[in-house]
Amino acid sequence: MVLNFPKAFVGALCLALINAWGAAADTSAYTVYRGTFVYLPKLNSSSTKPELTRSQGVLWVSAEDGRIKGYDWGVKDDASFQSFLSSHGWSDGSGSGSTQVQVVKSDDSQNEFFFPGFIDTHIHAPQFPNLGLFGSNQLLEWLNEYTYPIEASFGSKSDPNNTQTNPNDAPPLGLREYDEVIARTLSHGTTTASYFATIHVAATNALAALCQRHGQRAFIGRVCMDNKDQCPSYYVDESAEEGFNATKSTIDYIHSIDPNGTLIKPIITPRFAPSCSNESLDGLGQLAASYDPPLHIQTHIAETTSEVELVQQLFPESSSYADVYDKAHLLTNRTILAHGIHLTKEEWALIVKRGSAVAHCPASNSALGSGLAPVRAMLEAGVTVGLGTDVAGGYSTSILEVARQASLVSRLLSYSAEYLALIGNTTAEGTDGHEKLSPDDVLYLATRGGAQVVHMADDIGGFDTGMIWDAQLIELGAVQNKTISPLPAKPLKSLVSRAAAESATVGNIDLFGNETWQEQIQKWMWSGDDRNVKNVWVQGKLVHTRS
Amino acid sequence: MVLNFPKAFVGALCLALINAWGAAADTSAYTVYRGTFVYLPKLNSSSTKPELTRSQGVLWVSAEDGRIKGYDWGVKDDASFQSFLSSHGWSDGSGSGSTQVQVVKSDDSQNEFFFPGFIDTHIHAPQFPNLGLFGSNQLLEWLNEYTYPIEASFGSKSDPNNTQTNPNDAPPLGLREYDEVIARTLSHGTTTASYFATIHVAATNALAALCQRHGQRAFIGRVCMDNKDQCPSYYVDESAEEGFNATKSTIDYIHSIDPNGTLIKPIITPRFAPSCSNESLDGLGQLAASYDPPLHIQTHIAETTSEVELVQQLFPESSSYADVYDKAHLLTNRTILAHGIHLTKEEWALIVKRGSAVAHCPASNSALGSGLAPVRAMLEAGVTVGLGTDVAGGYSTSILEVARQASLVSRLLSYSAEYLALIGNTTAEGTDGHEKLSPDDVLYLATRGGAQVVHMADDIGGFDTGMIWDAQLIELGAVQNKTISPLPAKPLKSLVSRAAAESATVGNIDLFGNETWQEQIQKWMWSGDDRNVKNVWVQGKLVHTRS
Repeated sequence: MVLNFPKAFVGALCLALINAWGAAADTSAYTVYRGTFVYLPKLNSSSTKPELTRSQGVLWVSAEDGRIKGYDWGVKDDASFQSFLSSHGWSDGSGSGSTQVQVVKSDDSQNEFFFPGFIDTHIHAPQFPNLGLFGSNQLLEWLNEYTYPIEASFGSKSDPNNTQTNPNDAPPLGLREYDEVIARTLSHGTTTASYFATIHVAATNALAALCQRHGQRAFIGRVCMDNKDQCPSYYVDESAEEGFNATKSTIDYIHSIDPNGTLIKPIITPRFAPSCSNESLDGLGQLAASYDPPLHIQTHIAETTSEVELVQQLFPESSSYADVYDKAHLLTNRTILAHGIHLTKEEWALIVKRGSAVAHCPASNSALGSGLAPVRAMLEAGVTVGLGTDVAGGYSTSILEVARQASLVSRLLSYSAEYLALIGNTTAEGTDGHEKLSPDDVLYLATRGGAQVVHMADDIGGFDTGMIWDAQLIELGAVQNKTISPLPAKPLKSLVSRAAAESATVGNIDLFGNETWQEQIQKWMWSGDDRNVKNVWVQGKLVHTRS
Repeated sequence: MVLNFPKAFVGALCLALINAWGAAADTSAYTVYRGTFVYLPKLNSSSTKPELTRSQGVLWVSAEDGRIKGYDWGVKDDASFQSFLSSHGWSDGSGSGSTQVQVVKSDDSQNEFFFPGFIDTHIHAPQFPNLGLFGSNQLLEWLNEYTYPIEASFGSKSDPNNTQTNPNDAPPLGLREYDEVIARTLSHGTTTASYFATIHVAATNALAALCQRHGQRAFIGRVCMDNKDQCPSYYVDESAEEGFNATKSTIDYIHSIDPNGTLIKPIITPRFAPSCSNESLDGLGQLAASYDPPLHIQTHIAETTSEVELVQQLFPESSSYADVYDKAHLLTNRTILAHGIHLTKEEWALIVKRGSAVAHCPASNSALGSGLAPVRAMLEAGVTVGLGTDVAGGYSTSILEVARQASLVSRLLSYSAEYLALIGNTTAEGTDGHEKLSPDDVLYLATRGGAQVVHMADDIGGFDTGMIWDAQLIELGAVQNKTISPLPAKPLKSLVSRAAAESATVGNIDLFGNETWQEQIQKWMWSGDDRNVKNVWVQGKLVHTRS
């Protein structure tokens, strides 16, 4: 009765194929991607509304730097493809060109398309084991009950003073958990992630090394938290200075394993204002600015109203939560501010002025009951916004799930008393509905928006020439074409399984053949999951293939 | 490079195994389920807070009627299991008992457990092809743009007067779509569904026959809509009387294929008040009451505020939306009212008085921006509440996804101006948080709550002796136990896949071994999907196995 699908065997086969592929790809100067490409063109002054675009043809990527060197949407059939190859002096093995290139095709019969990789602008790697565990707490209680204990477990008993730097000295369970969160996010198409680690140097270095091993683009932040009044005694930096030294140690390690910052970059990470002394905040602002180029910065802001009140109490000299960070020179054009639900319009203006950005985390904000962020209003005020899973306040490692939640929350926004006050309306009926985020909007936030947030708008998030090939191959599956056997007047006695139908579908997406391509994308946005992510590339390298 | 996993082969194998299993099960008088059972005990006056319970041992089901005949939580190991079998004179093939029984085990090493089947109290089968397609419309526009056109396609060009009754006369694409929505809901563990079909008799009969073929418990409603002012000209009953006749025709057909109503029952289905004339509403109330026992009834209520206003205009003689239905004797103890977001407290009281129930559809309500239903307040007022996917206002066929959304929406409720007015508070800070629905709460709604809604609280939704075995076997997967190879100071050049790790995980659930069983269930509730549904039984028969 029990059918054990031979996963281990297929897994091994996949691994072998990946390695073979990787080896083969390494010998070709270019990889030509052929088929269907879906993406969001970059917005500018003449195009302010994101619109999904589909192009069919070829696009080629240099193995040397993993960047897109050109595209040709005129290549539609095999003949024009061979002409295209010849014109470049290339061969796919069947033609006459002298230079062998690798060719990767999307399969139209399976409704496959290339899509830019997702960018997770806010994720707590050590909280991953707590995914789905948060009870009915709000933020501040949740931190004490769930979050600080799991984060503390990434320290080593043999290292009470947090002086170890060797990533292999991190606890074995922690290594396993870090390895898995990277594998999971990659499997959902996340090609870039901005990670909060913990206060521990060895484990933070391990997270960096594991991201590099998996080939995921990542910002790695050792968490700084030295305010003993607001942090648990078992999980706190001894002092601001000890925090600086530990942070510098992780920066040095990351620079040693990725000297050019090709994939892995350090990011200065004060947990949030209440966790940090003024000395720590000021020093971290200076630390970020002391590098050339300045280091990225990430922290939290205005996630809950009680947190906003706490910040007012703790920092009476500041005019707002954003002003606390600004006074410490932590609001830069490389700063990621997670959540930002309860910011004032004055804070938006300050954030825009400094060129900082907001990581919108709707799955987390709903799960913890933090509130509904007014994303459209922030965008219209000029704030840069991307998406974050906020694992494990958020219950999913998937940015596609977060995109869904961003859309859902935007459709409930007109019921929020806080939002109505913000826009000066008194009832939901008074809103015009333009606050709703469409599939195009949220997929823009998931790609281009995220790229802006991590200050890489010219490098990732789209398929423009010169950009890095951080991409995913999405497979929606074939159109349903089963035939239904005649229905009797009386019921059949024997049971019928859906096995015959299953061959056409991939995951939870059903296509019946009458969808426009835009509707196919909408079905993906609302029903897609990691089963639809067939391959993932970062910097031109294949880093994940569905098993 | 492309790895084609041999789905067709595995599919065929599954089918063979299911059939073999079905045949084998048919020859045994009992099936003994052995292992871990998780469920929600029925609430009563002494237990008002749902609490997940786990029992380990055996439970046995009669093949004759598919009902649970007993359980023994003292059976823990193989020796006590053999004693248990002997005491009943049973044999699993290895013992000495004279009566052969079928044994189905859950596998603890894979963290498997039996769970009651989910009950979808509100789903529109013909809207399934539109899953994920709804633009930025609210309800009334969405009906015209998306919903009425797809529903109309279930009619046949050769049958403009809707007189055909043979299910095989339904359009082939419609049959395919109906077949797939049943297969999909079963694959997500939905053992009972209350379906809205369309106005078409042949296609409605086909839906009934297909549910019976798949073995899914279902209520099948031909949709009644005869108000020509409010319905599109291409999709409307010619008259109230034509609607009655067509409805009676589907009732007769359903009674002919399932004379005892074992699996499939008809349900009287006025679309919603605005779609129906007073003559139609009154007549449908009488029609339901004319059967013994009275037929079930389903309709929509108070989904959006503009719909509530429309009902006030169309039915000026009624004191409320609920009163419209009450005047037509459509509020009975077998009535399912979908949505109920914007009901007044007076309407709650009327609904409680009549014993009617609400199908809460949060995925749909958020997706269409209909609002946030105050579920806890309704429950405390005595309203019976279950969950509905509301495909395709809802974007998912999964009740587990709906349970998640129910929890998420409840955590945003305190931000709703409408909710604050309802409870007499002025700010979110004034609420005490008890409106939040826990995993236990929403899983209760998904099982016991749904059973109450469909008036089958003594038959389904739990594992009490005497109840029907409508159940699912959930597999969370093994605990992660991979070891991480040493991290070099410099990055590896070769790529690493997650294939080696994958063997431990099923779907998106990661267990690290330190979770309590309650936390395992929480992880399932937040991250589970159809990959975790290994087997599904209805009325003691295996009707779905994961492929």
